[in-house]
Amino acid sequence: MTIKMGILGFGFIGHELENLLSDFQEIELVALCDIEPEQMQNAKTPGIAKYQHMDDFFGHPDMDTVIIAIPNHLHKEAVIKAAKASKHILCEKPVALTVEELDEMEKAVQEAGVKFTVHHQRRFDPDFRTAKEIFDSKELGDVYTVQSMLYGINGNMHDWHVYKKFGGGMLYDWGVHLIDQILWMIPGKLKTVYADIRNVINKEVDDYFKILLRFENNIVAEIELGTYFLADKPNWFERHWFIGGNRGSAFIDGFKPNGKICTTSRLLENAGSKRTMTSAGPTRSFGTPAPGVLITKDLPEVNTSHRQYFDNFVNAMRGEEDFLVKIPEVRRTLSVMEAVFKSGETGQVIQFE
Amino acid sequence: MTIKMGILGFGFIGHELENLLSDFQEIELVALCDIEPEQMQNAKTPGIAKYQHMDDFFGHPDMDTVIIAIPNHLHKEAVIKAAKASKHILCEKPVALTVEELDEMEKAVQEAGVKFTVHHQRRFDPDFRTAKEIFDSKELGDVYTVQSMLYGINGNMHDWHVYKKFGGGMLYDWGVHLIDQILWMIPGKLKTVYADIRNVINKEVDDYFKILLRFENNIVAEIELGTYFLADKPNWFERHWFIGGNRGSAFIDGFKPNGKICTTSRLLENAGSKRTMTSAGPTRSFGTPAPGVLITKDLPEVNTSHRQYFDNFVNAMRGEEDFLVKIPEVRRTLSVMEAVFKSGETGQVIQFE
Repeated sequence: MTIKMGILGFGFIGHELENLLSDFQEIELVALCDIEPEQMQNAKTPGIAKYQHMDDFFGHPDMDTVIIAIPNHLHKEAVIKAAKASKHILCEKPVALTVEELDEMEKAVQEAGVKFTVHHQRRFDPDFRTAKEIFDSKELGDVYTVQSMLYGINGNMHDWHVYKKFGGGMLYDWGVHLIDQILWMIPGKLKTVYADIRNVINKEVDDYFKILLRFENNIVAEIELGTYFLADKPNWFERHWFIGGNRGSAFIDGFKPNGKICTTSRLLENAGSKRTMTSAGPTRSFGTPAPGVLITKDLPEVNTSHRQYFDNFVNAMRGEEDFLVKIPEVRRTLSVMEAVFKSGETGQVIQFE
Repeated sequence: MTIKMGILGFGFIGHELENLLSDFQEIELVALCDIEPEQMQNAKTPGIAKYQHMDDFFGHPDMDTVIIAIPNHLHKEAVIKAAKASKHILCEKPVALTVEELDEMEKAVQEAGVKFTVHHQRRFDPDFRTAKEIFDSKELGDVYTVQSMLYGINGNMHDWHVYKKFGGGMLYDWGVHLIDQILWMIPGKLKTVYADIRNVINKEVDDYFKILLRFENNIVAEIELGTYFLADKPNWFERHWFIGGNRGSAFIDGFKPNGKICTTSRLLENAGSKRTMTSAGPTRSFGTPAPGVLITKDLPEVNTSHRQYFDNFVNAMRGEEDFLVKIPEVRRTLSVMEAVFKSGETGQVIQFE
């Protein structure tokens, strides 16, 4: 079975997807659509049909599946129209701006009996998979903190993402990935959400957030993103993870991750109530550890790429496996995002599950 | 006027204080007290009186001022007894375990008409003063985040600090300094407190906390401390500051601070809704900045030492200036600590001022 696929929206991601999907024998790209026809001039697929309006695009003959890669505020309209045209649907993230929108979309999808999933390809990011592998291995003991950070340099929020009316802002653009990763990694109920969310240098949309997710299993996950959070440190303007447990810590820096798993050669010994002098100066609790106390181990190597997202997609379209990204998961992520906005506005903890 | 001073508790801090104070012409050390007499064997002050019990110590003739440097749970008893013996009082931090205790102590001090201050010498720490100088300069524009972090290596929580009954735990030991620094630096009302506080490797007492303090002026200050928060990075097991504003960021690492003030050569330009390809790969918002975009500047040099705490102390004892550390400030810090414990227990935001 060949998947006959169209791409709605031929911007940055549309181009990326054309490149990636041209590699898959199981996928045939048959149509593109963009409201600005010049965007499609550099399409590489020979003979591909080009449309300017989504209504015409959805009427393309012999196309069974569409990827929706237009600005966020149009996802709802496009998904509902695609479903009514009996197309299977892969939608870019964030699938919708609100849970309510998603529920309307899901209703149309159910009525049409088409397949529906979301492009959360960052479940295959090497930094995330490294963190997840360490987390899953339980070698850090009881984990209490999982910190996921992403910093950028000013000037690098792009295109329509700076406008509120298009569904812009960093929570919708990247926050959705960072939350999806955490929810996919940490099992169990999420009890509360607390967040600070800001427009630091943008007029309309958020460009900084800190989110604390407290799970029933006693893990607090923290997500921090800033587009104007500056330091001249190695890999600063990239991904950072810190995972802390009662048997060790791990840090992971960069999209191509560097880092270490760290433990200590001696566990805490209660020193008793005897007061003793040490030579460590006015703080004895902090400072350079004695040689040999800190033990480090290399990060596990992970073999992962965004291509694997489409391996699963193709297999799921053939009915051979489930979609990796399921709509209830996407809905949960969107619910967290709504809680983040609400906590940021009110300054309160939002009860979750 | 010579201050005739006794030290109650000749442990780690008692020894440190003897060394430091022997330098001050205005201070004469006249008596020591420790329940373990062998602790005083290495006292350096010739002819100093030595007591084993605080009741005897407070009766020492010709002593007008005492430093209280015994475990935290005994501060209340000692301060009240010192006040009743008409001694001026410098108490170690945390001044008390609860606000209620402090209020009892303050009442005794008021009734006796003696002077009373607290040893918050870390207001003179070079890392803190560097952060404060940058903050005060307003060169980062509107500051939205002030992050104060301190990480330690396992095994380095000492002596009675591992026992709850002595007032142990890292919030009482170091948290009190970190909170005092933030409250002294950031002006205005503190609206809410949210905290996660843990016993990660200790049985009885906290050894990890993350505290978010949301001020009325829209700054969120974050304090994180972990005694088992491991990484093999430079100066990791020390102090870290990050300050973010809408005109730049600053980071400060280490007790002897290294770091930079960072800005960018171009501010965000709204790119318009035109979608364009870039060569920056699948993320255009994060990654290595182009050369010349990030601009760094050296940290200001600060000239500060713990000795300056006692310069003020001596001057205040002479009536020439006010104590730098005032009891209402100390009480506010203790109130924040109570809110931290309560937020940690309940998972809720605690309304503050």
